Amino acid sequence: MQQRLDKTHDAHLRSWVESANPVAGVAASDFPIQNLPHGVFRRAGTQEAWRGGVAIGDYVMDLAAVLAAGLLPAMVEDAARKAAAATLNDLMALPAPQRRALRAALSDLLVEGAVQRERTARCLLLLADVEHALPARIENFSDYYSSIHHAINVGALFRPDNPVLPNYRWLPVGYTGRVSSIRVSGVDVTRPKGQLKAPDAPTPTYEPCKRLDYEVELGMLIGTGNALGTPIDIREADEHVFGVCLLNDWSARDIQTWEYQPLGPMLSKSFMTSISPWVVTLDALEPYRTGFARPDGDPAPLPHLWCETMSERGSIDIRLQMYLQTSRMREAGEAPHLISDSRFTDAYWAMAQLVAHQTSNGTNLCPGDLMGSGTLSGPEPLSRACLLEMTQGGKNPITLPNGEQRGFLADGDTVLMRGYCQKEGAVRIGFGECRTTVLPVMQP
Amino acid sequence: MQQRLDKTHDAHLRSWVESANPVAGVAASDFPIQNLPHGVFRRAGTQEAWRGGVAIGDYVMDLAAVLAAGLLPAMVEDAARKAAAATLNDLMALPAPQRRALRAALSDLLVEGAVQRERTARCLLLLADVEHALPARIENFSDYYSSIHHAINVGALFRPDNPVLPNYRWLPVGYTGRVSSIRVSGVDVTRPKGQLKAPDAPTPTYEPCKRLDYEVELGMLIGTGNALGTPIDIREADEHVFGVCLLNDWSARDIQTWEYQPLGPMLSKSFMTSISPWVVTLDALEPYRTGFARPDGDPAPLPHLWCETMSERGSIDIRLQMYLQTSRMREAGEAPHLISDSRFTDAYWAMAQLVAHQTSNGTNLCPGDLMGSGTLSGPEPLSRACLLEMTQGGKNPITLPNGEQRGFLADGDTVLMRGYCQKEGAVRIGFGECRTTVLPVMQP
Repeated sequence: MQQRLDKTHDAHLRSWVESANPVAGVAASDFPIQNLPHGVFRRAGTQEAWRGGVAIGDYVMDLAAVLAAGLLPAMVEDAARKAAAATLNDLMALPAPQRRALRAALSDLLVEGAVQRERTARCLLLLADVEHALPARIENFSDYYSSIHHAINVGALFRPDNPVLPNYRWLPVGYTGRVSSIRVSGVDVTRPKGQLKAPDAPTPTYEPCKRLDYEVELGMLIGTGNALGTPIDIREADEHVFGVCLLNDWSARDIQTWEYQPLGPMLSKSFMTSISPWVVTLDALEPYRTGFARPDGDPAPLPHLWCETMSERGSIDIRLQMYLQTSRMREAGEAPHLISDSRFTDAYWAMAQLVAHQTSNGTNLCPGDLMGSGTLSGPEPLSRACLLEMTQGGKNPITLPNGEQRGFLADGDTVLMRGYCQKEGAVRIGFGECRTTVLPVMQP
Repeated sequence: MQQRLDKTHDAHLRSWVESANPVAGVAASDFPIQNLPHGVFRRAGTQEAWRGGVAIGDYVMDLAAVLAAGLLPAMVEDAARKAAAATLNDLMALPAPQRRALRAALSDLLVEGAVQRERTARCLLLLADVEHALPARIENFSDYYSSIHHAINVGALFRPDNPVLPNYRWLPVGYTGRVSSIRVSGVDVTRPKGQLKAPDAPTPTYEPCKRLDYEVELGMLIGTGNALGTPIDIREADEHVFGVCLLNDWSARDIQTWEYQPLGPMLSKSFMTSISPWVVTLDALEPYRTGFARPDGDPAPLPHLWCETMSERGSIDIRLQMYLQTSRMREAGEAPHLISDSRFTDAYWAMAQLVAHQTSNGTNLCPGDLMGSGTLSGPEPLSRACLLEMTQGGKNPITLPNGEQRGFLADGDTVLMRGYCQKEGAVRIGFGECRTTVLPVMQP
C-alpha cells in the first residue's frame, strides 16, 4: 500500500506530556503525539480572544504562546501563525507540504527528550480549563448520504416500495446544508417546532417536533480549494481534505417527512448541526488508510469517480460511537450508554469521491468548507447510526440500563459522539467528543 | 392601506443629477432619486479597494468620498460608513430606522436645489466606468419555489402523474443553496459537466450539460437577523428584509433529473447563481406594496404564516423580464430579445412567509443572507420564467427574430434580466440588470 508515513507516525514515539502516552499499551488519551489535531479555544469563562491550538494528552498547546516564545523553526512560523489564529481557514488553505512541515515541527517540540521541554510546557493549558469555538469560518456545508445501509434502512421507512433509488449507486447523493446553525460540541440544541402532518390527518399543524433524532457522521474540512469552473481530479481529491471531525446532523424526522419532496430536506435539518472541536488531520490518519471496494456485482464507478489508488487506500478505518445519557441517568450519576457503534469503512462512497463529485460540475470548494459523510450506518443492528433506523421509526424503542425507553430523543437527553482509529502496530488516534443536550422548545 | 411613505417617496421629487429624472413623464434611468439602491463598486480595470455606493441616474455616488467631504449630518455618519464599506453586511444589520434616516439624508443631498450640490457632484462616478462586487458577504443562501405556476409546469415535466405535491399549499417548499458560486452580474457562467442519464439509457455518463437553463427570480437580502432558536414572527418578518435584487438561479436540467431524488437538487444548481449588483431597499419599494391573497378555495395559511396586514400589503408589484442575445445576434448588432415577462405578485408565497417559515424551526438568519423567491412564472405563456417551462422541456423551442431557435441555452448566449416597478402616480423604480454569458465547458 502506498503510504505516506513519516517519523511523526512512528508508533514508538512518546511525548514528555505523560498523559499523551499509552499506559501498559492502552491509550490514556485521544490525543497522543501521533495525533496533534487542530482546534480553536480560549480559557473557559473568560472573554479572551479565540486562538488556535493543538491537543496533546490532557492539554492544549497554545500556538500563539509557542510562537511568542520563539520555539519553532523559522520555516514553519508562517504555518504556525495561521494555526494560532481565531479561525483555521488560512492554515487549511496552505499546500499540504507546509502543513506537514508544521506537524513535524510540533512533533519535535513535544517528543520525549525535546530540548525545549520546559519552555514548551509553559505554553500548555489543561483541556479541562478551556472552551471551544468552531475550528473554521465555515462558508459552505454539503451533507452526503454515503452509507447504503442507512439509505436502505431509511428509504424503507420513507418509501417502502422504493427504498434505494436508481441514482444511488452511480453518484454520491447529497444536499447543501445550512451554515448559520453549525455549532461546536457543548452548545445545546433547542427542540425545533415545525409543520407536521400525520398520514391520516387532513391538514398539517405547527408544533414541537416529536421525532427528534441525531445522525452519526464524519465531517470533512476542506483544505485548499479550487477555482470556480475547474473540477478537482479524483487523483488529487484527498490532498484537498485538511482533516476530519465528528458531525451530528440533527434531524427532525416528522418535519422531514412532510417537507422533503420535491426539493429535499431543509427545515428538518437547518435548526442545528454539531461538530467536535478538534480537527484530526488526514496526515495523522495515514496509518489507518485502507482499501475501498464496491460490493460484488455493483456497477463500477464512472471514470471521474475512480482512481487506481483507491482500491489500496481509498478509505480510512475510523470507528464512530454514539452514547446517550438521559436527564434521569445524569441525576443518578449513571454514565452515558453506548447506543451505536459503526465504521467509516462501511460507507458506499469514499471521501475522494465526494470531493470529485462535488466539484465535477465546476463548483468551487473553499478552505474550511464542511462536507458531511451522511449517517454512517453499517450492516449490524448496533451499527444503525440514528434512532430512526435503530428503532424503525420509533416502533421498537431502545431500552436503557435504567429501564427508560427511547424511540426518539426526549428533552434533557445528552448525546455524546466519539470516534477513534485503532489497530495492531499503530497508536490509537481519538477524535475527542461531540456532546449536545436537548433543550425544550422555546415558548413564545 | 397602511403605507410607510415619507418625503423620499414623493413622486414630484427631482434630482440635480439630470439623468435620474424622467423626461416628459418617461423614466430615463432605473435609478431616480426615489430609488437609491446600494451596491459595491470600484473603477473598472483598477485594483482600487471595493467600496459601497448608491446609484443615482447614470452615476454611482461614492459614499466614502461623501463622508470624507463631510457632506452628511452626524446622525447618519455611522450608517453611511457601513454603506461605504466593501461589503454591506453591517449596513444591513442596522435597525430599519437608522437605514431610513440614511436614505432621507442621501435624498436631501441629491434633491434639486440641494445647497451642497457642487461638492456632492465631485463624489459621483459614471456607472459606465465602474465594475461591481457582490453587495454582501453572503453566508447563507436559501432558494424557494414560490410560484405555483412554475411548480405546476415543472412538476408536470418531472412527475407527470403528480405535478404539485400535497405540501405545496401548506409550506413554502425550498432548499439550501450553494454560497461559494454566487457571482455578480457580468461574471460569465461555464457550462457544467455532470452525470446525465436518458430514461432509456442503461447507465449514466459524465459529459457537458445539454439542457442549460436560467431561472428568473427575485433575491431578498436579509437585514437584521435573529438568534438561533428564536423564530421571527411573521408580523415582523418584512422588517428583517433589507432589500431585493435580481437573481438568476442557473440550472442544469439533465443533471437535475438524474440527481434530485431523494435529497433535492445539488450539482444541477451549485455551479453558479448570478445576482444583480444593486440592492433596491424595501423602503424604496414602499409605494408598490400591494395586497396578497390566496386563490379561492385554497387552504388558509397556518397562523404562523399569516398576519392581517398581508392582505393589504403582503406583496410588491415587481415585474421581471428576461432577454436573450445569441452570439450571432451580438455579432450582427441585434439587441437582446425579450423572452419572458412576469410579476412577483403571481407568487403563491409572500416574502414575509418565506422569512417566517425559514426561521419557524429556530434557524437563525444573518445580515446579508440571500433568499431566492424561486422561478417567478405567471399564468400566461410569456410569463414562463425559465426555458424548461417555456419550451416544455426543449420540445417546443422558442424562435428568435433572426430565425435561431433555442430549447435550452447554447454556448455564447447572453441572458439579461431586468426588473422594475411602475404605476400611475408613482415614479418608476428599476433594478438595473443581471447579465451573464454562457462559456463552453472547460477542457481538461
